[in-house]
Formats: sequence, structure tokens, C-alpha cells
Amino acid sequence: MDKKRLAIGRPNPAAGNGLLDRRHLFGAAAAGSMAALISRPVVAAAGELAVEPWMRELGSPFVGYGQPSRFEAKVVRVSSTAPGTTGTGASRTPHHLLDGTITPSGLHFERHHSGIPDINPDAHRLLIHGLVKRPLVFTLETLARYPVESRIAFIECGGNSGALYQKDPAAGGMQALHGLVSCAEWTGVRLADLLDEAGADPKAKWILAEGADEAGMSRSVPMAKAMDDAILALYQNGERIRPSNGYPLRLLLPGYEGNMNVKWLRRIKVTEGPTMTKDETSKYTISLPDGKALQFVFPIEAKSVITHPSPGLSMKGVGLYEISGLAWSGYGKISKVDVSADGGKSWAAAALQEPVLAKALTRFRAAWRWNGGPAILQSRATDDSGYVQPTRARLIADRGMKTIYHFNGIASWAVGQNGEVTHVYA
Amino acid sequence: MDKKRLAIGRPNPAAGNGLLDRRHLFGAAAAGSMAALISRPVVAAAGELAVEPWMRELGSPFVGYGQPSRFEAKVVRVSSTAPGTTGTGASRTPHHLLDGTITPSGLHFERHHSGIPDINPDAHRLLIHGLVKRPLVFTLETLARYPVESRIAFIECGGNSGALYQKDPAAGGMQALHGLVSCAEWTGVRLADLLDEAGADPKAKWILAEGADEAGMSRSVPMAKAMDDAILALYQNGERIRPSNGYPLRLLLPGYEGNMNVKWLRRIKVTEGPTMTKDETSKYTISLPDGKALQFVFPIEAKSVITHPSPGLSMKGVGLYEISGLAWSGYGKISKVDVSADGGKSWAAAALQEPVLAKALTRFRAAWRWNGGPAILQSRATDDSGYVQPTRARLIADRGMKTIYHFNGIASWAVGQNGEVTHVYA
Repeated sequence: MDKKRLAIGRPNPAAGNGLLDRRHLFGAAAAGSMAALISRPVVAAAGELAVEPWMRELGSPFVGYGQPSRFEAKVVRVSSTAPGTTGTGASRTPHHLLDGTITPSGLHFERHHSGIPDINPDAHRLLIHGLVKRPLVFTLETLARYPVESRIAFIECGGNSGALYQKDPAAGGMQALHGLVSCAEWTGVRLADLLDEAGADPKAKWILAEGADEAGMSRSVPMAKAMDDAILALYQNGERIRPSNGYPLRLLLPGYEGNMNVKWLRRIKVTEGPTMTKDETSKYTISLPDGKALQFVFPIEAKSVITHPSPGLSMKGVGLYEISGLAWSGYGKISKVDVSADGGKSWAAAALQEPVLAKALTRFRAAWRWNGGPAILQSRATDDSGYVQPTRARLIADRGMKTIYHFNGIASWAVGQNGEVTHVYA
Repeated sequence: MDKKRLAIGRPNPAAGNGLLDRRHLFGAAAAGSMAALISRPVVAAAGELAVEPWMRELGSPFVGYGQPSRFEAKVVRVSSTAPGTTGTGASRTPHHLLDGTITPSGLHFERHHSGIPDINPDAHRLLIHGLVKRPLVFTLETLARYPVESRIAFIECGGNSGALYQKDPAAGGMQALHGLVSCAEWTGVRLADLLDEAGADPKAKWILAEGADEAGMSRSVPMAKAMDDAILALYQNGERIRPSNGYPLRLLLPGYEGNMNVKWLRRIKVTEGPTMTKDETSKYTISLPDGKALQFVFPIEAKSVITHPSPGLSMKGVGLYEISGLAWSGYGKISKVDVSADGGKSWAAAALQEPVLAKALTRFRAAWRWNGGPAILQSRATDDSGYVQPTRARLIADRGMKTIYHFNGIASWAVGQNGEVTHVYA
């Protein structure tokens, strides 16, 4: 085995910044000296392992529904609410403390407008009406008789990363700045089947979707999307959707901005045009420098963020680190993620974790040898439409800084000589 | 639109038993009359929808870690323990109340030998020793510096479905009979990297893996498997593994019987041969009719079970139903699942939910028009090695009835004229 290969480092020719070709890390031939580059584990004499107290006593009994370890109590969503309210605001996923691509349902981000309704599923109804031949009311039991499908999909709030439109770099890290995106396996009935069933009028180009919260939060959705891949989701990550994510029924519009994925869905009205609700007029529109605004910007453009390292996860000594993050596109599959450690001067391709699924979070990973000096980490996603995630400067040149919505520019983490990681513009 | 297509039913030519070709259900052209075959939803006048109490008041505030609805309190694991113990036994996943392929971590099946240890992750160590050049001790922090990978994988207890070896059909349904299988996204470090790091002796053909529970549960694993796709899992479904599933570290051996996926992993010893622990000698061996026993039967053969309908989920009126279930193979991907409604006389191919992943649960679905008469539902999985799930009779002819392990014969649910579903042999 050629142990020297990895020790030498074999930097990616495309990068002069310590980024390594991952193939050299994963081949058995190369792994022998990985620890030298990481931080050599303690070499122990056999039998030295302590018998810890939990091996000296019987463990705890079975419970019907398991919970995380008490030692993980810090792994929670962090929420912020409008003044004077407890349920109007958002909570953010702590991606810097997670790994993989599925977001546990208890940590899926939330955006509520009047808190979380406590819906009795036996009383809940879905009405489909408007420009239809046959208005229909469904119970959950009737809905569940229709053919069902599952898909793993991300949901991202239109306001995620909105702080990066500000002039000065906001404090905070992955959770505070980019925590309004999550990913789950959703299972439910195809909306197209129900609209066919109701006999939607061919001249109807939109639907209105309304939630059963106190706000009656509602959004207009193009009929083309409703007939394409919209799902009335009953299950999230295998179990019934949790109240904070829309129990018992949520509209899933894969790849469309989060607000349109109406929770607690109670009503779909087939309409000729959009209904112009509050959340598509005064909110979720992109104000441009010239005073105009972009309305009905639905799909999320390709985007990526590095979750490890990120602020709060400091570097501990020079050597090898895995840079890891999440990429997604509302238009399809992620085809490539490039990573830079020098603020975008040079790039190296990251490995994408299989399976890469359309409109789902994709985990990317790249090996990086930190030499102890300052560095600026960035990631840049490309999707299978060929679209490349823009720099922040490019995005702002196009769109200005008057909005908080649909920020998908490249984000930057600075690594200081002390190993601390902070949010910067670069 | 040709509304008659579905109304006529167009049964699959292969099946004379009401099974329908799913393509006709999903085409927009066919969907118009689906409700007529299901159970016609109430036709409602627009505006008739009641404004329920939860729309008249503010909902509940944000919480750091969400939980299921109080209306889903019945969706729990059911456990059974050895006499005089609270933590030696197993708990089973309620697949009849779930859908999709991911099992929520709180409902993942468990098999414990001395309860669930309460491990402090800062004190936890992993020792790699035995026939190695460099014995190594890892903290979790050191481990996390190695390259990480994710995969969605099932784990099935070797004793799952063991009651089907009994002479008379056991009472109970999906959870009681087949609930010892679950599926999650696991993320961690490749064991091969660490064994390379330690310099495992080429003549060592096995490893021993030991857990940090009071039982010190341990199993021998072939080195070939350890070097192939074994993962030291730190995360399950995105978050740190829960205590009941091995917090903070679990050995994941994709496709191998559950017991070998050692929880609370503390020690890996590289050995020349197997260690002959309790759980691979007196347990987890297959007793044959001639008094001999099969030892070291590791991968799970291709298998499938229908989850919907199944006992406890009764049929409500004649008409269209979706038959849905789970299929898996420890050897690779599921390539086909056939479904029968007449006890195996005729079969129709079910649709497989994409993505179909190797060594992961695969959801299959088929449309069935129940005519109100008695029926016997079965599913039969084929994997990409060409292996076909055997009938129960065939399996027992080969293996006898003295064991409880590795039952993968075809299971049967009987539908009675009253719509009740029961476990039978057929």
C-alpha cells in the first residue's frame, strides 16, 4: 500500500488551497495515514478501555416512542416571534449539529402566522370547490383511499438567508442565517387525481390553497404546478405529519417556496386567476431597486451552504477536515457542487452523496487540509438545468438589497488563525 | 378523456382477482372516475365547510423539538420483555399505521439485552485492538474528523416473522408478526478506514464488535463485510442516534441480521476466527430438522409484507383499495414485487416507489378492486440477484419448524366478507 499518497496530500490540481481529491481519501490504499493528517488518536494498550458506569447497571426499559439522548438537549430549533405574539414567526433547523440529508421531523423548520392549531383529524375536512364540475369534501379516511406516493423533498422558506441582503454581514451561523430549509420524506395523494375527480374547468389556471390555522393562511398556486407534482401530504418521515408541519394535511409543492406549501390544508378553490392574498402581495414579493417588485417567484433556484465547519464549530488544530454541506434546487437535481477555501479564487469538486434526488437536499463532502492560516470557505451549486449559484455580488447587482426573499447567493465562512469560524462577505 | 377506462377496471391480464394495472390509475385520463370506485366523497355546496374551533383561536407557540399530535398517541412501538426484566426483549414498529419508507427514529424497532444504557458521549470511547499494528482509541470528536458517508438502510432482527414457523397461524398483524424491521438514513465513518488506520493483520478474517450495555452484547463479523460497507453510525435520520438505537455509536452492517448491528459500540477486536459469543452460538443459529444448525447466516434474504390492508385495518365497503407494503433484501435492490389477491394463484406486478435503494426498505403499491368476497392477499419480492421470496411451505420444507430465525416466506392476510383482515396460512 502506498501510504505516501495521502501523506503527500496530492492537492486537487484545480485548487491551491488545501482541498484534496476525495478519491485519495476513500481508497483503501490511501487510508493508512489519514490519522496523521487528522489528529492522531490516542494509541492505547489493549485492555485499557475503562468500564463505564452504564456498563455496571441495567439500562432503562422500553418506551413506546423514543426520544433523543438527554446529552443532546442543545440540538433544538431556535425560534423568533413577532412582538406580542408566541406563535407568529419562524423556527430554524440546527443543521450545524446534524448530518445526512433527512431532517428529523421534530427539527424541521417552521413558519407560523397564528401558532399551531390543535386539529382533530376526525373533524378535519378538505373542500375542493370553485371552477369545478363537482365540489367535493374529503375526510382523511376518504383521502387515504386514493393512490399514494412518496418523495423526499426539501422545503425552504422564501425568506431563508434573507439577512445576506443586508449591507453588513449578520452575526450568527448556519442555523440563524440558513436554518429555514429542511428535508423530509413526504407521502400522500396526488393533487392532480383530486382535481380530475372534481372536474376542474380547463379555463381555470390557478388554485387557492387555504390552511386551517387562525390566520387562514392562503396562497395562489398555478394549476400547472398543481397538476404536475403537487402532493396532499399525510405522512412525514413515515409517520403522520406533526402539528408544527401541518397535521393532518399539508400541500407539498416540491421545489416551490415554503410559504406555498400550505399547512393544515382545508380548502382548495379552483380559480381563473390568482387570488392576491396577503402573502403574495404585501409579503413574498421581491422589491427591486427601481421600486417595482417581482411577484409570483415560486421555484427555489440552485443553492448550497457549508454546514461543517460553520460558526460555532471551531477548527481544532491544523490537519485534515471534512467540509460538508447541503445543496438543493427547486428545478431538479444538483449536478455539481464546487468548494473553495480561498474565497472563490480556486475551486474543487465536492463528492455528492448518492442518491441525488430532484428537489431534495443533497449532501456534499470535500476533504480539506487546513494549514492553520486564515481561509474563506464557499460552496457553489450547479443544477441539472445548467444553472450555477451566483455570487452574492452578482445577485445583489441584479436584484438590489431592498428585499429579504429568495437569497441564493454564495455564502462565505471565514476561518481565523485561532480556528474560529465566522460569517463574512467575500 | 376516456372516463370509461378506469370504470371498466381493465384488470391486469395476469390476474383474475381484481388487481388493476396501476398505470390506468395514475394517468390523468383515467382519474375522473376514481371516486366512483373508492367511496364517493360527499358532494358539497361551496361554502359549506365548517369553521372548526381551532380556526377561532390562536394556536400553540413554538417549541424547540416537535412531537407528534396528541391524536396519534396510539402510534407507538409495542414491546415484550423476558420474565422479571424491563429491558430484555424487543419492541416492534407499527408499520400498519405508517407509510413511506423511512421509519421515524422514535418508532424504530429495538432488541435489547439489558436495557438502554445512558451513555455520556464525552466519556464514550471506541477501542480498536487485537490483530492490528496500532491499537487505537477514538473519542467521538476524533471519529467525526474522518470522512463521513450516509446511506438509507433497513435493519431487520433475525427473529422477525419468526412466529410464522409455528404450526398454527399466530394471531396479530403487521406489528406483532413483522414489526422487527425498520429503515433509516444512517450517517457515519467507514469502518474500513479505521481498520486500515489501525493496520489490521492480513491473516485476520474476523472482527468482534462489542456494545457498552450491561450485557456487553457482542458479535463476530467477517472482515470482508467490515471492509466492504460497514459504517460506524453517529447519526440516524439526520440527528444523533437515539439511545434506544445505540447512542452515541452503532455498527451498521447493511443487509445483515439486526443483532450484528451492535449498538453502543465500544470495542472492535480484530481476530483470526469468530469469537463464538452467546448470540452466535446459543442464539441466532437456525436449528434444522436433523438436529444440526446453520450458524453465521448473516444477510437477510429478499422478503416483503403487505402493510395496508393488514389485521386491524378493516376494509370498508366494496371498491378500489390501494394495496401497499414493504420489500427488502440484504443482497441488493428489490427488482420486482408481485401481489396476489387469491392466495398465490395469480399475480400482478406492483409499482415500486422510486428511488429503489440497495439494502433499504422499498415501498410497493398496487390497486385492487375488492368485490366484497373473501380474498387472500400475498406479496412476493424478487431482488436484483434474481432470488425470489419463497412460499412458506417451500421455506419450511427446506428448513423445518424448529427455529425462529430468518423467516422470509410469503405471508398471507385473509380478507373476510365482513371486511376484517386476519393472518392465515395459504
